[in-house]
Amino acid sequence: MTVAPNKNDIESAHERILSFIHVTPVLTSELLNQKTGCELFFKCENFQKVGAFKYRGATNAMLQLSAAELQKGVATHSSGNHGQALAKAAKIAGGKAYIVMPRNAPKVKVDAVKGYGAEVVFCEPTLEARETTLNHILEKTGATFIHPYNNYEVIAGQATCAKELINQVDDLEVIIAPVGGGGLLSGTLLSAHYFAPNIEVWAGEPENVNDALLSLKKGEIVPAPNTPTIADGLKTSLGDKTFPIIKEHVYGVLTVSEEEIIEAMKFIWQYLKIIVEPSCAVPLAAIIKNPIFFQDKKVGVILTGGNVDLEKLPF
Amino acid sequence: MTVAPNKNDIESAHERILSFIHVTPVLTSELLNQKTGCELFFKCENFQKVGAFKYRGATNAMLQLSAAELQKGVATHSSGNHGQALAKAAKIAGGKAYIVMPRNAPKVKVDAVKGYGAEVVFCEPTLEARETTLNHILEKTGATFIHPYNNYEVIAGQATCAKELINQVDDLEVIIAPVGGGGLLSGTLLSAHYFAPNIEVWAGEPENVNDALLSLKKGEIVPAPNTPTIADGLKTSLGDKTFPIIKEHVYGVLTVSEEEIIEAMKFIWQYLKIIVEPSCAVPLAAIIKNPIFFQDKKVGVILTGGNVDLEKLPF
Repeated sequence: MTVAPNKNDIESAHERILSFIHVTPVLTSELLNQKTGCELFFKCENFQKVGAFKYRGATNAMLQLSAAELQKGVATHSSGNHGQALAKAAKIAGGKAYIVMPRNAPKVKVDAVKGYGAEVVFCEPTLEARETTLNHILEKTGATFIHPYNNYEVIAGQATCAKELINQVDDLEVIIAPVGGGGLLSGTLLSAHYFAPNIEVWAGEPENVNDALLSLKKGEIVPAPNTPTIADGLKTSLGDKTFPIIKEHVYGVLTVSEEEIIEAMKFIWQYLKIIVEPSCAVPLAAIIKNPIFFQDKKVGVILTGGNVDLEKLPF
Repeated sequence: MTVAPNKNDIESAHERILSFIHVTPVLTSELLNQKTGCELFFKCENFQKVGAFKYRGATNAMLQLSAAELQKGVATHSSGNHGQALAKAAKIAGGKAYIVMPRNAPKVKVDAVKGYGAEVVFCEPTLEARETTLNHILEKTGATFIHPYNNYEVIAGQATCAKELINQVDDLEVIIAPVGGGGLLSGTLLSAHYFAPNIEVWAGEPENVNDALLSLKKGEIVPAPNTPTIADGLKTSLGDKTFPIIKEHVYGVLTVSEEEIIEAMKFIWQYLKIIVEPSCAVPLAAIIKNPIFFQDKKVGVILTGGNVDLEKLPF
């Protein structure tokens, strides 16, 4: 795909992946509705296979490879959910996956990727080492690089999440998703644009890594700063495929502090009784901080994943 | 109701409460199926209103009060989920609830009960003080006592959980539920008996409080010992209404250690991405410990509730 996914691309992506993914449930909580003053519908991608929405995009990209490409395999660099997602998608499709991971990646994540049968290639924990190692693999094996978000097949796959949500909840007025590299957000924007154009789509972002907000203000991609945030899934910069979609369609980007993220995460755990990653809590934190934009509305909130280390909780 | 609920009683209970409860979802996990060697279907009462199945029984009992009884209100003693369930059910039905709680009950639980508009009456933290205080309230107010489990309306309400599960999953072969006072277990047994008589119903129980196992061996109710267990919802003794149903219908009681409960709880959190109380983990622990009874079968597991203190986790 050489241009951004259109309506038909997203519909085709959904048909293509439907027998491999979970159509995840939408949960509600009376108490959280009372607390926020709006009607919240949580789309639970923490229940998706491999525990994150990333499986949608990886599967969609994987299933479009030719037989020749499949034989050579796929590769990516990821210490997070995309690595697991691509590893599992490759296994389902019957191809090999090479996942470049930093030497200091948590053992549990390395084991998960290996558990899906992928080959883990370690590198030094720097962006440069990551890219050099990946390029070396691509040259040596002829594998296809599947970028975690700056890839139209991946974006079309992530778009199926909002497409489902729009289908599951009548008359949604707002959707809010977190933004890191922008794969989920741009997919969400496209699905709202094509399937429910009246929906306002907002993004939530950590104050500590507010590059999407700065990029929109400046009109060009501002790289993400290397500041720490508990929402570690959102530390990446926008890409040249995601940024234009975001610039054209997003209603606004709302930033939240670390404390606000932790508080919102605790609300989700306590009231919805589900386990979500800190990144998931960013949209709810933004709703709580900015009631004026959401008051009395039907708001879809995309919960992106549930892969947390239960021994390292912030509360 | 003066005799155990029959098929019609359970069907009526379900119709009566259906617009007040959540029909809770059934979750599955490929990884947990691989780990246990059976096909597991988790009935998620942690997503029930007030976070526990207890809301079914309390609502069913509440909605059968006469106008005169409703005016005088209901009372119970509970430091746990039944107190919250009855408080909320009373609010929905438009009656008053008196909940006797020990002075040392966690503030969060007291606040939850008060949040539903119930009157909390404190007593010393002993069984005797609890009963004296409750009797005093019953005499003074004329309120109706709604026992947490030794009550046929409550049992019929809890039975609706397994009725739903049987309806949600085709060809279930086994159901396993935890046993404390036996309200959920006896309801589960009756629903299996009436709606899917081929299903084997097992119970899981902490080794530390194995009074159900001892009661079945002895043929009469053996009181629960005052041993600590992390599965604190299961510390109660069987009642004269629950024991006969259990004795007649249960396939077997399997006991598990504290370590086994904690391990199974962690599996549920990690693989299903949901928050469950330690009591919920007892059946899964029993399955892991006794594969021979469950191997290759379709097994329904009732997850009873999700009210845990996130700051006091065992891992």
